[in-house]
Amino acid sequence: MKVKPLADRVLIEPNPAEEKTAGGLFIPDTAKEKPLAGKVIAVGPGTSDVKMEVKVGDQVLYGKYAGTEITIDGKDLLIMKQGDILAII
Amino acid sequence: MKVKPLADRVLIEPNPAEEKTAGGLFIPDTAKEKPLAGKVIAVGPGTSDVKMEVKVGDQVLYGKYAGTEITIDGKDLLIMKQGDILAII
Amino acid sequence: MKVKPLADRVLIEPNPAEEKTAGGLFIPDTAKEKPLAGKVIAVGPGTSDVKMEVKVGDQVLYGKYAGTEITIDGKDLLIMKQGDILAII
Amino acid sequence: MKVKPLADRVLIEPNPAEEKTAGGLFIPDTAKEKPLAGKVIAVGPGTSDVKMEVKVGDQVLYGKYAGTEITIDGKDLLIMKQGDILAII
Amino acid sequence: MKVKPLADRVLIEPNPAEEKTAGGLFIPDTAKEKPLAGKVIAVGPGTSDVKMEVKVGDQVLYGKYAGTEITIDGKDLLIMKQGDILAII
Amino acid sequence: MKVKPLADRVLIEPNPAEEKTAGGLFIPDTAKEKPLAGKVIAVGPGTSDVKMEVKVGDQVLYGKYAGTEITIDGKDLLIMKQGDILAII
Amino acid sequence: MKVKPLADRVLIEPNPAEEKTAGGLFIPDTAKEKPLAGKVIAVGPGTSDVKMEVKVGDQVLYGKYAGTEITIDGKDLLIMKQGDILAII
Repeated sequence: MKVKPLADRVLIEPNPAEEKTAGGLFIPDTAKEKPLAGKVIAVGPGTSDVKMEVKVGDQVLYGKYAGTEITIDGKDLLIMKQGDILAII
Repeated sequence: MKVKPLADRVLIEPNPAEEKTAGGLFIPDTAKEKPLAGKVIAVGPGTSDVKMEVKVGDQVLYGKYAGTEITIDGKDLLIMKQGDILAII
Repeated sequence: MKVKPLADRVLIEPNPAEEKTAGGLFIPDTAKEKPLAGKVIAVGPGTSDVKMEVKVGDQVLYGKYAGTEITIDGKDLLIMKQGDILAII
Repeated sequence: MKVKPLADRVLIEPNPAEEKTAGGLFIPDTAKEKPLAGKVIAVGPGTSDVKMEVKVGDQVLYGKYAGTEITIDGKDLLIMKQGDILAII
Repeated sequence: MKVKPLADRVLIEPNPAEEKTAGGLFIPDTAKEKPLAGKVIAVGPGTSDVKMEVKVGDQVLYGKYAGTEITIDGKDLLIMKQGDILAII
Repeated sequence: MKVKPLADRVLIEPNPAEEKTAGGLFIPDTAKEKPLAGKVIAVGPGTSDVKMEVKVGDQVLYGKYAGTEITIDGKDLLIMKQGDILAII
Repeated sequence: MKVKPLADRVLIEPNPAEEKTAGGLFIPDTAKEKPLAGKVIAVGPGTSDVKMEVKVGDQVLYGKYAGTEITIDGKDLLIMKQGDILAII
């Protein structure tokens, strides 16, 4: 099934959990949450305010609580606004 | 009865409940709500800020709490702003 | 008495209560409120941001808590911003 | 004493209390407040965003809690933004 | 000492307390606060959004809690944004 | 060490405490806080929205809680947005 | 691993803790938090609203709670919007 995000939204396939904890043992010395990583699967057309900077195949970092989970063809994906993506890695 | 949504609103007929739970057994390992799916029935003209990207007949994903329920000719429909639609599938 | 709504406001005569419950017996299976219907009596000139889409005589849907009640010539009317109107039916 | 409202403000002389309850016996079947009526005494020049639509002498409707009371020459007046005025009657 | 307000701020010398209660005995029949009066001492240059409408010497009305008190040469003055001034009297 | 404020920020050296209480004995008859004074040490380039009005060497007034303290070369300075500065004195 | 911040975000390597407390013994006489310092590692392209003012290699000051921690190649870095950077030092 093909998913076409609207506006400035991006569809992301989260990396497997091993990569999520790539920073190794997490010692919570601050209240800050480490972001997660994933691969861009689909990109919306953008809006008059937001030009899309990510493209399909990019590895991106995003906050732990960013986006909405959707299940497409049995895969758990995330759909979020590009503004919730921190960086391309 | 014909319904003409105003501004950037979209009229949606939610898919039957079977499809709503298409992701299978839902194990609530996160606080995130899975979005629902439906068919676009009518589309507003847009606004100076929002250009309409969905069209009648599109299958769309939207958040569980998006929109307002309306009953037209005995059918339970939803009317929501296009900004509440996550993606076309 | 003639009422001229300001800016993007619309004056509405709510439909009689029978029509309000036109969806039949209401079983509250969700927290969502069903919108109400009414007839447009007068329309403001709009603003630089909002172009008026409704016109006098239109039947419109609006949220249960939208607008302000005013009593004109003994009739209970509602005055609300066009943005609170969901659709023309 | 002459009062010149700034920006998009309007100076209003509330109608006497009899007119305020012109709708007759008030049975509070909803939580909605009925608006009050008054006469426009002075009008500000407007702003780049707000063009003034009311003029001196207009009878207007406004929400019960709109505006700030001021006492000029012993008269209790109200000064409010035009956006708080619902309609000209 | 000369004070030059920044942006759309205005420096005001509040009128003596006698004038503040010029409306006579205050019977608090509503929750609304009566505004105070003062004389404009200095006016900022305005901003791209706000054109200055008051000038030095104007008597103005402002809300009871508007502005910040500053003490210049032993005088208690108020500095506030022009948007907090209700009217020129 | 040289500090270059970003955007519409201004670096300020607060006046010694004696000047801070220049208004003499403070009798707290209102809840309003008196602003403090300081000297402008460095000025950012401004933004598309904010044109800088203060320059290095200006004595300025600012609210008691404005800005962020930074320690440069052993001196306690404040960095704040120009919008938090009330006036040049 | 290369990290490309999106929009107006900046990637920062915090200075070692010794420099963080460069102001010497911290006596908490106010509720204000002292900002921290770090080196700019990567800079986003900016947005239509925000032109980038910092460049790779700049030493910058930022608030204690600014940004999101990310771990890249074993290094703890911070990614934040340029608007959270106070100054270049």
